[in-house]
Amino acid sequence: MNQITRLAAYFLFLNLGIFVPRSLFSEGIGEIIKSAGNNASVEIIANGIWRVRLGKPEEFTPTHFRSGSIQTQSLEALAPAAASPINLEKIRFAVSARGCVVTLPMNSGEHIYGLGLSTRSFDKTNTRQKLIPSDNPEMEGGVSHAPVPFYVSTDGYGVFVDTARYATFYIGDTSPLIDAPETNVPEAQIANSTDVLYKARTLANRSILVDIPAAQGIDIYILAGPQMLDAVRRYNLFSGGGAVPPLYGLGMVYRGKGDFTAQESLRLARSLRETGIPCDLWGLEPGWQTATYPCSFVWDTNRFPDPSGFVKQMANMGFRLSFWEHCFTHSISPIYDDIKPFSGNFRVWNGLVPDFATTNGRKIFLNQQEKSLFSLGVLGGVKLDECDNQPWSPTPWSFPEASRFPSGLDGEQMHSLLGVLYQQTMLEPFTRRNLRTWGLVRNSHALASPLPYVVYSDSYDHHCYVRGMANQGFSGLLWGPEVRDTGSVEDLARRVQTTIFSPQAIINAWYMKLPPWLQMNMEKSNAGELMPGHEEATALIKKLFELRMSLIPYLYSAFNDYRLTGTPPMRALVMDWPNDPMTYAVDDEFMVGPSMLVAPMFAGQGKRSVYLPAGTWYDFWSNERMQGGRKIEVSKPLERIPIYVKEDSIIPLAYPVQHITKTTVFDLTVKVYGLKPAPFVLFEDDGESNDYLSGKQSRVSLLWSGTSGQIERRGDYTGPARYTVSQWENIQESPSPLRPLGQTTGSTTLYKEPR
Amino acid sequence: MNQITRLAAYFLFLNLGIFVPRSLFSEGIGEIIKSAGNNASVEIIANGIWRVRLGKPEEFTPTHFRSGSIQTQSLEALAPAAASPINLEKIRFAVSARGCVVTLPMNSGEHIYGLGLSTRSFDKTNTRQKLIPSDNPEMEGGVSHAPVPFYVSTDGYGVFVDTARYATFYIGDTSPLIDAPETNVPEAQIANSTDVLYKARTLANRSILVDIPAAQGIDIYILAGPQMLDAVRRYNLFSGGGAVPPLYGLGMVYRGKGDFTAQESLRLARSLRETGIPCDLWGLEPGWQTATYPCSFVWDTNRFPDPSGFVKQMANMGFRLSFWEHCFTHSISPIYDDIKPFSGNFRVWNGLVPDFATTNGRKIFLNQQEKSLFSLGVLGGVKLDECDNQPWSPTPWSFPEASRFPSGLDGEQMHSLLGVLYQQTMLEPFTRRNLRTWGLVRNSHALASPLPYVVYSDSYDHHCYVRGMANQGFSGLLWGPEVRDTGSVEDLARRVQTTIFSPQAIINAWYMKLPPWLQMNMEKSNAGELMPGHEEATALIKKLFELRMSLIPYLYSAFNDYRLTGTPPMRALVMDWPNDPMTYAVDDEFMVGPSMLVAPMFAGQGKRSVYLPAGTWYDFWSNERMQGGRKIEVSKPLERIPIYVKEDSIIPLAYPVQHITKTTVFDLTVKVYGLKPAPFVLFEDDGESNDYLSGKQSRVSLLWSGTSGQIERRGDYTGPARYTVSQWENIQESPSPLRPLGQTTGSTTLYKEPR
Repeated sequence: MNQITRLAAYFLFLNLGIFVPRSLFSEGIGEIIKSAGNNASVEIIANGIWRVRLGKPEEFTPTHFRSGSIQTQSLEALAPAAASPINLEKIRFAVSARGCVVTLPMNSGEHIYGLGLSTRSFDKTNTRQKLIPSDNPEMEGGVSHAPVPFYVSTDGYGVFVDTARYATFYIGDTSPLIDAPETNVPEAQIANSTDVLYKARTLANRSILVDIPAAQGIDIYILAGPQMLDAVRRYNLFSGGGAVPPLYGLGMVYRGKGDFTAQESLRLARSLRETGIPCDLWGLEPGWQTATYPCSFVWDTNRFPDPSGFVKQMANMGFRLSFWEHCFTHSISPIYDDIKPFSGNFRVWNGLVPDFATTNGRKIFLNQQEKSLFSLGVLGGVKLDECDNQPWSPTPWSFPEASRFPSGLDGEQMHSLLGVLYQQTMLEPFTRRNLRTWGLVRNSHALASPLPYVVYSDSYDHHCYVRGMANQGFSGLLWGPEVRDTGSVEDLARRVQTTIFSPQAIINAWYMKLPPWLQMNMEKSNAGELMPGHEEATALIKKLFELRMSLIPYLYSAFNDYRLTGTPPMRALVMDWPNDPMTYAVDDEFMVGPSMLVAPMFAGQGKRSVYLPAGTWYDFWSNERMQGGRKIEVSKPLERIPIYVKEDSIIPLAYPVQHITKTTVFDLTVKVYGLKPAPFVLFEDDGESNDYLSGKQSRVSLLWSGTSGQIERRGDYTGPARYTVSQWENIQESPSPLRPLGQTTGSTTLYKEPR
Repeated sequence: MNQITRLAAYFLFLNLGIFVPRSLFSEGIGEIIKSAGNNASVEIIANGIWRVRLGKPEEFTPTHFRSGSIQTQSLEALAPAAASPINLEKIRFAVSARGCVVTLPMNSGEHIYGLGLSTRSFDKTNTRQKLIPSDNPEMEGGVSHAPVPFYVSTDGYGVFVDTARYATFYIGDTSPLIDAPETNVPEAQIANSTDVLYKARTLANRSILVDIPAAQGIDIYILAGPQMLDAVRRYNLFSGGGAVPPLYGLGMVYRGKGDFTAQESLRLARSLRETGIPCDLWGLEPGWQTATYPCSFVWDTNRFPDPSGFVKQMANMGFRLSFWEHCFTHSISPIYDDIKPFSGNFRVWNGLVPDFATTNGRKIFLNQQEKSLFSLGVLGGVKLDECDNQPWSPTPWSFPEASRFPSGLDGEQMHSLLGVLYQQTMLEPFTRRNLRTWGLVRNSHALASPLPYVVYSDSYDHHCYVRGMANQGFSGLLWGPEVRDTGSVEDLARRVQTTIFSPQAIINAWYMKLPPWLQMNMEKSNAGELMPGHEEATALIKKLFELRMSLIPYLYSAFNDYRLTGTPPMRALVMDWPNDPMTYAVDDEFMVGPSMLVAPMFAGQGKRSVYLPAGTWYDFWSNERMQGGRKIEVSKPLERIPIYVKEDSIIPLAYPVQHITKTTVFDLTVKVYGLKPAPFVLFEDDGESNDYLSGKQSRVSLLWSGTSGQIERRGDYTGPARYTVSQWENIQESPSPLRPLGQTTGSTTLYKEPR
């Protein structure tokens, strides 16, 4: 594996590749270490990353199909970690016909997060999580669109288990004979309800058990802190660093009705421009193809008589296109015969399942994508649907786990990896053109941080959507809580408020003719009936979209930071305050970038409770200064979402444009919170190509002297400036005494009204 | 394996043990037969049973832990089957690191049933079933208290897959590349809803895929028909023949409140006798032990100062006792230290999990059971709780699948087999005493037909309970739809009507002081508050219990038939009418014995639809004669459950006694339906010991000449007669023309009123 070569210096310096003596493993009753020669080895892979190899690992694991290389240099920039954060001597390992089992230590006070993009569960402590990809993610227990065998601890470390198997993680909720106490106080009371019978019995000693099917060995990566966020950073840098969107990717996304013709698409797109509704990416849902379940990947010339002309017309209005597809290949597709030998041995909806782990499978599949899509000119992205699975359904539609693929992968491994392999495949044409992209995908997995795709869902519970916002950062994933039909303007506004703080702000009207601000109800939308009050709704939604547009420079910095330091652009509060137990259950607030705390409201909620961690905060809307370390009750009108800014930080807000072009210059109002704010660094580049990766990027630092602002521009980007500052605004030049929460005390301009 | 020796005659005669040529297996894309030497063999195990051995099967399978021996003689009595009912050439097999996969042929018109005691799903055609034991069985998809890797087809054959793994069965809902058609008509219409997108695509060629984890080989048993019921019979005879209850086991069961003291138990038991409410088995729930989660298996002398005296007092009133327990062993239990080396390496509720697959584990466990329970005298049975699993729960309480047991079983195998092994263990003391028993258990599995235990559940949906009645017969299982608290007297009566037609008729008042006919509401019951109308409710319930008591001779014959011919005493309509597609979805009616069709009603249902298969039927209550092959609308008052009797059959009804004793003589009214009824055979024996197995049983045939009845007694039972006939009643001496369904036309005496 190439990282070993690259890290030879480490190995020499640290005298690694050592064999751990057998005594490392205590043999539990019935547990026998019988893997090849009982060997286990520990290697330091990079600063603060240990690989513990146990037995003989499988070939097809996430590291085998890396999307990016280990960011050794960035890892070196993190705090040096001399010793493993968990005691390696306490790791136990056993193999059997079923696969292998690893037991890792866990302290009684630890809380564990991660394991993928669950939208139902948050704190994983004392639970079992089965990592199985699912199209029905709003469930407890580990199934999600993107299960990831990586967890992080409030004790300040992370563990990545390199497997594409449906591994089961028991997080402190098992009771191994050798760990559990010998005495047990009897229950004096006979239970008279099952609730009482089955109540959890707390254990003094805990451990984390990982049950990995089929594999006769496993690589466990242990990632140091010292803090939880550092461990996450290491995971993301180990994965290859975080993905950076093209600038337009941070604009608004509108996906039109599935059966829209070219004319219908153009008409609605034009009307967005006329109404001044911001939109950068226009999504074409299934209707562009002649067949879609399974897919032909061929334009339907009834609906789109001139695809190339259509793409140009959309481009002329400033829209990038994002094409829906799934990979199951219809017998009428031109590639059907060619790709058949490079497909799995089970069909889905009678279509072939291309094996993207084979070079030929990728190549043949991409040939058709080139013909239909990429040859038409510059595209924004793709939406890769249906690549997940149905673990609990009695009527699953995807291929069985027992499938075999020509690459050697079986169906279980393929289900775990299909999303990642499909993303990689569809990324190739963009990379070949030196272009970024910003895609959508319904399944992802481990080490996905560098993949420029956002996970989305058919599920729709708003609370779950917000929980996804908090959960995404634990696992190197991005989450797109899209807006579809809604039950009320309030629900519409509150859902839009969540999506505009997400990696991809999506309105997905795939089954509605009209945008939801013109008609929320599906039937009426398709009857072309405008709802009463649509003018007010349009104005409201436009204002929220403009808030998103004003945040693009701030978000772009957060994503560049994701790439360079591994810091997730959106993340749960516990990641920044791991020593504050009050954050452990906060799954309905999240941090965006370095200093914004966002707490979405939900329809029907007159007010909500917001936990502000210790420190001083400013209400983004009222500028009220308030003390954290407490819960506050908050109420905001429909055009506002509760946002709090950390004291001593700088937030640049751009004059909102309708869409991003190659030459867009962001006109900034720089808001300065507190007296001694840390500088804020903007990233300046062409916004579309991958030249920034080879240094063609500048850093524009916003500095506040205490009385005035200044800009420092450093770097090798030679194109036209992206940013101008037209206004500095010090929210609190001389901090007033902290006020208790009360009536809002007025607000400053969020962004300047369009001139 | 001993059956091979025993069946040597067969092998010689039929020249078996043949090796099947490699061409038997078509290699699908990516499928490689690489199991030891590519060998596969086919052996005829008994008349109409083929064993196909593929690869190298695991050691610990259901056949390894048989509860009974193959009933070769009874199998020979079935129709001879010369050729395998399915084409062996069409079986495909592959092994991989994940385990092994078998593909079996399936015709387009076939319907498949079985795979265990699901209470949610019935017809398994076009579904995926994952066979995982669960404490939450009211779910689709294969989880149940008793998953069984055996299915039967309306085409008249069965397939048993000998595995204790969590196998997944895909019943005609996969699309293997080599089987599926090459062309696929494109969908002209773009779907605008997920329902349309995901609608099932019918396949011309179907197959059944069995995905077996971990195993590198598998034994598949193919069981011939010619009819579905014959295949089920073969399965039950292969399992060892059906269980026969002690006569008292068919009486009513009442389980008292969990924390009842001896005095409280005696007081309530006495009041049942005083009210004349029939009851044979009295259940002691957790309170008899000093600790129960986990269990001590030691009497709590606070609640029961004199266990032996208590047992005697109950026996004096004619009650047998049934003791609740689960096997997880508390540290205060006297056997704790002894059993620890024979326990799994994970605890449950801090208790040890005894390994019943070890001789010592069984022995040490039974030592304590002998001391506490069996030494006290004659017991009726045990209730073995909590031996299932929590496959989907994020907070499971049982041991992990990754557990190891000293016997060599892993946690997955143990979860499948724990119920069976526990049943076998607790059966030993009865067998040693030459006594029958009639137990309860919450988990069972394959080949359980000879085990005298009835599966019960914490779940409580009445429709699911009735579906369990229909499903039990497919898989060699018995189901006890117990009655607990209810929402209304109607609900109470309707639920009681279901339980009195089940293998064990149970009132389980484990969290209620008063019987539900005195107070249905839990809180009020525990406050000792009688409900208004309890006198009427008591009379109603007593009447229903008496119906059960009157049916004991009929049921006893059905169970003896279960043992001798493998015919399930309760079974779905499709099993008797596999060629009538109208029966394929009937999951709320079931056959009891040879000729009674029972269609329970549900609370809130003024009337229900009942499907009567082709033939002539009599309404049990009104004696109305009606033509089948159609659905009828039925309404019955609370003291009656819709029951229909096939023409030309005989039903013996006993004068209801309060409980069964060693000397009980059933005073019969013999009801004769039609002009030429088949004889009905009663089984006469001591009702309690296993002497009937060595021939100490007589057959009492009830014969109808056309004008009068006669009794023929044959056999070697030498005890006092069990049956006297005091009345013959020919329901329809001269059949009137069939009447359309209308008002009931009056009723005859069901059973004689108590004198």
